[in-house]
Amino acid sequence: MSNERVIYLPLGGAGEIGMNAYVYGYGKPGKEKLILVDLGVTFPDMDTSPGVDLILPDMTWLIKRKKDLEAIFVTHAHEDHVGAVAHYYSQLDAPIYARAFTANIARRKLSEHGHPEKAVKVVSPWPKKTDAGPFKVGFVPISHSIPESSGLVIDTPKGRIVHTGDFKIDTDPGVGEPFDHAMFEEIGKDGVLALMCDSTNVFSTNEGRSEATVGPEIEKLVASAKGMIAATTFASNVARVKTLAEAGQRAGRSVCLMGRAMRRMVEASIETGVLKKFPATITPEEAKTLPRESVMLIVTGSQGERRAASAQLANGKYQGIKMKEGDTFLFSSKTIPGNERGVIRIMNQFSEKGVDIVDDEAGRYHVSGHANRPDIEKMHELIKPQMVVPMHGEHRHLREHVKICEAKRLRGVMAVNGMMIDLTAQTPVVVEHIETGRTYLDGSVRVGALDGVVRDRIRMALNGHITVNIILDDDNESLGDPWCEIKGLAETGTSGAPLLDILEEDLSQFLGRAPARLRADDDKLEEELRRVARQSASGEIGKKPEVTVIISRLT
Amino acid sequence: MSNERVIYLPLGGAGEIGMNAYVYGYGKPGKEKLILVDLGVTFPDMDTSPGVDLILPDMTWLIKRKKDLEAIFVTHAHEDHVGAVAHYYSQLDAPIYARAFTANIARRKLSEHGHPEKAVKVVSPWPKKTDAGPFKVGFVPISHSIPESSGLVIDTPKGRIVHTGDFKIDTDPGVGEPFDHAMFEEIGKDGVLALMCDSTNVFSTNEGRSEATVGPEIEKLVASAKGMIAATTFASNVARVKTLAEAGQRAGRSVCLMGRAMRRMVEASIETGVLKKFPATITPEEAKTLPRESVMLIVTGSQGERRAASAQLANGKYQGIKMKEGDTFLFSSKTIPGNERGVIRIMNQFSEKGVDIVDDEAGRYHVSGHANRPDIEKMHELIKPQMVVPMHGEHRHLREHVKICEAKRLRGVMAVNGMMIDLTAQTPVVVEHIETGRTYLDGSVRVGALDGVVRDRIRMALNGHITVNIILDDDNESLGDPWCEIKGLAETGTSGAPLLDILEEDLSQFLGRAPARLRADDDKLEEELRRVARQSASGEIGKKPEVTVIISRLT
Repeated sequence: MSNERVIYLPLGGAGEIGMNAYVYGYGKPGKEKLILVDLGVTFPDMDTSPGVDLILPDMTWLIKRKKDLEAIFVTHAHEDHVGAVAHYYSQLDAPIYARAFTANIARRKLSEHGHPEKAVKVVSPWPKKTDAGPFKVGFVPISHSIPESSGLVIDTPKGRIVHTGDFKIDTDPGVGEPFDHAMFEEIGKDGVLALMCDSTNVFSTNEGRSEATVGPEIEKLVASAKGMIAATTFASNVARVKTLAEAGQRAGRSVCLMGRAMRRMVEASIETGVLKKFPATITPEEAKTLPRESVMLIVTGSQGERRAASAQLANGKYQGIKMKEGDTFLFSSKTIPGNERGVIRIMNQFSEKGVDIVDDEAGRYHVSGHANRPDIEKMHELIKPQMVVPMHGEHRHLREHVKICEAKRLRGVMAVNGMMIDLTAQTPVVVEHIETGRTYLDGSVRVGALDGVVRDRIRMALNGHITVNIILDDDNESLGDPWCEIKGLAETGTSGAPLLDILEEDLSQFLGRAPARLRADDDKLEEELRRVARQSASGEIGKKPEVTVIISRLT
Repeated sequence: MSNERVIYLPLGGAGEIGMNAYVYGYGKPGKEKLILVDLGVTFPDMDTSPGVDLILPDMTWLIKRKKDLEAIFVTHAHEDHVGAVAHYYSQLDAPIYARAFTANIARRKLSEHGHPEKAVKVVSPWPKKTDAGPFKVGFVPISHSIPESSGLVIDTPKGRIVHTGDFKIDTDPGVGEPFDHAMFEEIGKDGVLALMCDSTNVFSTNEGRSEATVGPEIEKLVASAKGMIAATTFASNVARVKTLAEAGQRAGRSVCLMGRAMRRMVEASIETGVLKKFPATITPEEAKTLPRESVMLIVTGSQGERRAASAQLANGKYQGIKMKEGDTFLFSSKTIPGNERGVIRIMNQFSEKGVDIVDDEAGRYHVSGHANRPDIEKMHELIKPQMVVPMHGEHRHLREHVKICEAKRLRGVMAVNGMMIDLTAQTPVVVEHIETGRTYLDGSVRVGALDGVVRDRIRMALNGHITVNIILDDDNESLGDPWCEIKGLAETGTSGAPLLDILEEDLSQFLGRAPARLRADDDKLEEELRRVARQSASGEIGKKPEVTVIISRLT
């Protein structure tokens, strides 16, 4: 019995913000029974993943061990925790457990992918526990920025693990359960083997602010607005959406929700009973018929997403509604690093229309959903674990979190994606390195991040593309001259002659001099034609483009 | 005489941050004599301008009027003010005036492009004035974040214009002249027609902080560092570089400057006498031989630029120097919006090496070089102009700046790139809209931003690329089957068969059914083959790629 162990293996989320996926195991080495906590996605960007639709964690290891996988537990309904459940449903084939609101969202996802909704089981919160092989797992209500977020209590034969999920300490969260200090203290009181703890806000040194603090500020702003007012926030922040809607209602405005995600989140909240007494809403068609000063829009697109309601309103109109001089647009949100350009573009488009923009520079209209450093330390103190394993954060966040622990003589364990930790060892150590990474959902297919597909796209974007076409007869003689097509390249270079003429001339001269042996060897000829085309372009336009060579042989 | 007018025409910088280029004119409509203030660049990004090397303002209008162009005045040596002088030297062919430090930088640029250095004339500061046709232009020392920044006093036959350039109000700037309130008051006292005023920090409501405030904080940090310490800042912020170097020196460390721009700026400062008493520096070779705790590196790359010293140190080593556990890396800089991902990547790479990162979240180790809102208002009060024309800022900044003026019953004139304003009209109005925009320097050639070249690159990056190749004989019969090549696309789609096989099969079937008339018409056939290839890919991989069709005809 003594060589049975408890393992922890992050497959996503540890070393990045987003794409959470954490494996726990119990059993003999290599034969552990497993559970997965969260199965999220992350989002592509033009710099590193152009054209990609969605980024999933690479689940190869877990798929190989699927017979050992007892269950998937989802802490909350943010995309970076639940977004990949439908994509891996068939391959992992395990029951999914979540509380009602999260389950509602997960079921919609499964259903959209043609999978059975009943794969998702609704569980009641702590002290109820769900059995999953050797594990007993309880969902402890915890405050965050979406309804019904939960920390997990994971009881193993060798001790208790507390997995916070994303959290903040908020005793007045507006929607959902307030943070319950006593409950967490109670959970920790008989000893906890390990605390897996959210790290995203570890660099914020001030104490966290309650969701309740933004209400009065928003109310003041909305009451003082003259024309139409529109506000954007994360659609899943239902408490905020409610605060915004109530501010509109109190100011005598009719509230209109715009954007699919916004309506879906409010619907799911009402269906599952987490949201009560939401102000009556009107449709965009109704909003159009009302005086501007009687309307408040609450819209998607706080991160500047090109197709969301905010971007479309900024760009012209959305569902027949236009914003104009004298209107106000509120960002009740913060800009996630990397999204600045998109958000700034929207701000400037509104500015051109004369719409006043209010953002959250001063922290008046938004609070974070994550625990700042003092609240992270508070969690350590409530749980009093034997060790803290920082999770959900970039490398720098996890490292800082470990440092905080060390400063308090609390054991902090650094574990990034792919590091399997034996939590039951005398000193927790990495017992295995698992290959992890990212899988791109690209159109309807999956592509490995390192397959070279996206690398080729980036190269075409940076360097442009030339197609070189030649036809050879069965004596390896060229029929006609080489022929090129260019894409993403200047038509004329430094000589003033068309680039195509220069390329074709250089290729033709090369071919004229090429020995018969080379002309007979497709691979070598292709390589040489590519080299000549790149060299020719480099001389003429100072760039070395990507080249596709087509050699046709007539026989 | 009475229909002579003073015009203002921003060709860059008004409606964006970067790429400053402002035209002033005096004379009869359409026949004004002109001067240009600043001629800067802006930088490309993967989202909008992949593969582009540098972005220049479109100078088409001014090149057409070059016979009227009397001179170019450069306020300071930041790239967004001086970066394009060499690129347009031949086309504008006008003398360039600047103070010694700026001239030093401008001359290096001309020289690198094979132009004569003497085109740049060094001018002394105010009260010295330079004649340029009907204008008399004086360089008034003003504090910013680079040595010898100047506001310009532009005297015209119809009144005085004050053009601030980039500025802050700093009476203790470390290097260069302190802001001189009395001098600006004096300049304004006989009446000023228009104040063209920096707007970039208009949303910062707190009073600006002096460069002098960061010195003690940096000194404390450097004194307490254990291993090697490296600091990055904008290379052109010579005052900061000096502060950093002095902090190193006081802590008993030898200082090593790394990165070409860093060494060049310090050299230029010493050559032109603006920098005196800079600590002795050592080479990277020397630094390698010293104990880590005796070395301080000051390096380029505060914005996460991939090829700069910071990125290379984070990635492995630079000029033989490696950073490791126990070392400290300081960002004495702020991240310009849009550069977050690059900076965060570096932070995480350092974190993986165990290097402690100190950034400027709390504002201790960096101050801005631009005037915050209270300082902008202070400038209004010192100059007391008849009107303020906000410049250098995005639309939202300019608009906010106009609002500030209106709130004080000061006339604020909104003018974005391409708006020619008659400053001498009863009410200043837009008298003409000039087509402006961006020109991309791409390799060794220039490409218009709207030419479609970069659009095609973006499309290839988002959608991937297919080459379709067919050969027809003189009866329009296909010789062999169509043949495809793909780049940036998954090799296998939802059917499990190779994408190439699916594409070639679909194209072959299409061609088999295509009527002779279509096969005889290259343009229509190309269009149809493209359509079929896109449709085929869409069915198989859910993406519609860019397609190059090569139709070869054997006759």
